[in-house]
Amino acid sequence: MTGARALLESERRRVDAALRRLLPPRGGPPPTVRRAMAYSLFPGGKRMRPVLAVVACRALGGRVRDVLPAAAGIEMVHTYSLIHDDLPALDDDDLRRGRPSSHRVFGEAMAILAGDALLTYAFEVVSTQPPGKRLLPRRLRAVALLARAAGVTGMIGGQVLDLETERRRFSLRTLDRIHRGKTGALISASVQIGGIMAGAREAEIAALRRYGDRVGLAFQIIDDILDQEGSSARLGKTAGKDRRAGKATYPALMGPARSRRRAESATRAALAALRPLGPRAAPLAAIATLITGRES
Amino acid sequence: MTGARALLESERRRVDAALRRLLPPRGGPPPTVRRAMAYSLFPGGKRMRPVLAVVACRALGGRVRDVLPAAAGIEMVHTYSLIHDDLPALDDDDLRRGRPSSHRVFGEAMAILAGDALLTYAFEVVSTQPPGKRLLPRRLRAVALLARAAGVTGMIGGQVLDLETERRRFSLRTLDRIHRGKTGALISASVQIGGIMAGAREAEIAALRRYGDRVGLAFQIIDDILDQEGSSARLGKTAGKDRRAGKATYPALMGPARSRRRAESATRAALAALRPLGPRAAPLAAIATLITGRES
Repeated sequence: MTGARALLESERRRVDAALRRLLPPRGGPPPTVRRAMAYSLFPGGKRMRPVLAVVACRALGGRVRDVLPAAAGIEMVHTYSLIHDDLPALDDDDLRRGRPSSHRVFGEAMAILAGDALLTYAFEVVSTQPPGKRLLPRRLRAVALLARAAGVTGMIGGQVLDLETERRRFSLRTLDRIHRGKTGALISASVQIGGIMAGAREAEIAALRRYGDRVGLAFQIIDDILDQEGSSARLGKTAGKDRRAGKATYPALMGPARSRRRAESATRAALAALRPLGPRAAPLAAIATLITGRES
Repeated sequence: MTGARALLESERRRVDAALRRLLPPRGGPPPTVRRAMAYSLFPGGKRMRPVLAVVACRALGGRVRDVLPAAAGIEMVHTYSLIHDDLPALDDDDLRRGRPSSHRVFGEAMAILAGDALLTYAFEVVSTQPPGKRLLPRRLRAVALLARAAGVTGMIGGQVLDLETERRRFSLRTLDRIHRGKTGALISASVQIGGIMAGAREAEIAALRRYGDRVGLAFQIIDDILDQEGSSARLGKTAGKDRRAGKATYPALMGPARSRRRAESATRAALAALRPLGPRAAPLAAIATLITGRES
């Protein structure tokens, strides 16, 4: 497992470097909004989504430099969603990745605009980079997949259901829909985009999608458990918030033990989905296992 | 001029029909967010941006059905920007297109998410429709141009500068930058996207860009004058707001008479930019003239 951790760490650095390189150049946008974009992007967290895109691309025989812009775009979309989720009108959270959230630093107006800016800029990056005729259909497909995963049947849809379910009774079916939208869709899109930028075949992309769906579910269940059991210091965000806000979570519905078993079963399903890809998918398998065992 | 008005009206209807057709299907997204998207999209205003895209596409020999999805996407981006601009943290406006603004009807959280949803969905539509291999490079280019026009060096950038200039002294240079960003960028992108979807040559797209830049400026100056002189009932939004908010506007800087002359000179420059395109550009010329003479 140490090998997998080292791999994740080195890919994370590569993603960070790409994000820095791809940020709009100084002197282009008004300085405040560029600063607000950078504030939320760096130092950043585990970069799980873009790292999954890079690892999936490599596993399918693609070149890392072909997927890095799309991977960076995915992280920009993820970061925009955190900024908007933290706003007073939504989750009203003052702490994110161990620091004051965007609106606490830049004010609400600028936080809304910085979120809008990251979302919009993600599509500029994914549609234009890297250049090259061969990559043109892949870039377009990545744009379409990213937009769908981030949209009303994906991330935004999940966020809306989440808001509407707060402090209400909820079923496992609703909970699965919320989480599939809020986290699953973008995680699944990340691995698929890795495959797309590698020029993978349709059957391979379908295998990546099944893997991504299951990994996304496992990730979210563990996230729910950590929010309930962890400390704010270790998580870098306000712990115990879900319960206080009356959020729909797995531990709230079925307790921590059954939740953990559900995460483990999702991980097994993720590993099974990788089988058709053969031994080159080993790094993806290692990541799935790491996610179930993570403690922050 | 009646002919031009009739043309605008018939293109506006075509755009409306495309918007209705392209809205996410019922049963896909959570109903509330779909309702909030539709509330801000319909009945809608003049649809100037998508109509310009359609008229430009036709002028450059393209097929209307090839440009309609991109035109609809442009209107979605414009509508998202209105929803977010009206939020309490930004312009705090209760009235839009003659009705309560989105956050007054759906609450602030849903208004933020509905704006995010329209922006995201625009990229889904433009990247996926209409299908066809021939249109694939055009769709990708339209995505890239739309993202850039809506982003930190375009619309969002203008909005940020606008916020930062409120209640301060400002120069004509700052004012031009604000307006080029806030309105000019998306209007110019609209006519260029019309040319792109028609498969126009680079020189033709450059002529459309010059035309769009000037038309966008004229449009914004007239908008500023109408805000100062018009009534809320005729405008369908709160009149006189710019002055009360201490906004940077042309009338505030140079008075209404000089502002109007500046709009007229921008219109002449727009007409001049069309010359290389020959007589087929007549409808675009008519629109430019209508914009300078409009009263709402």
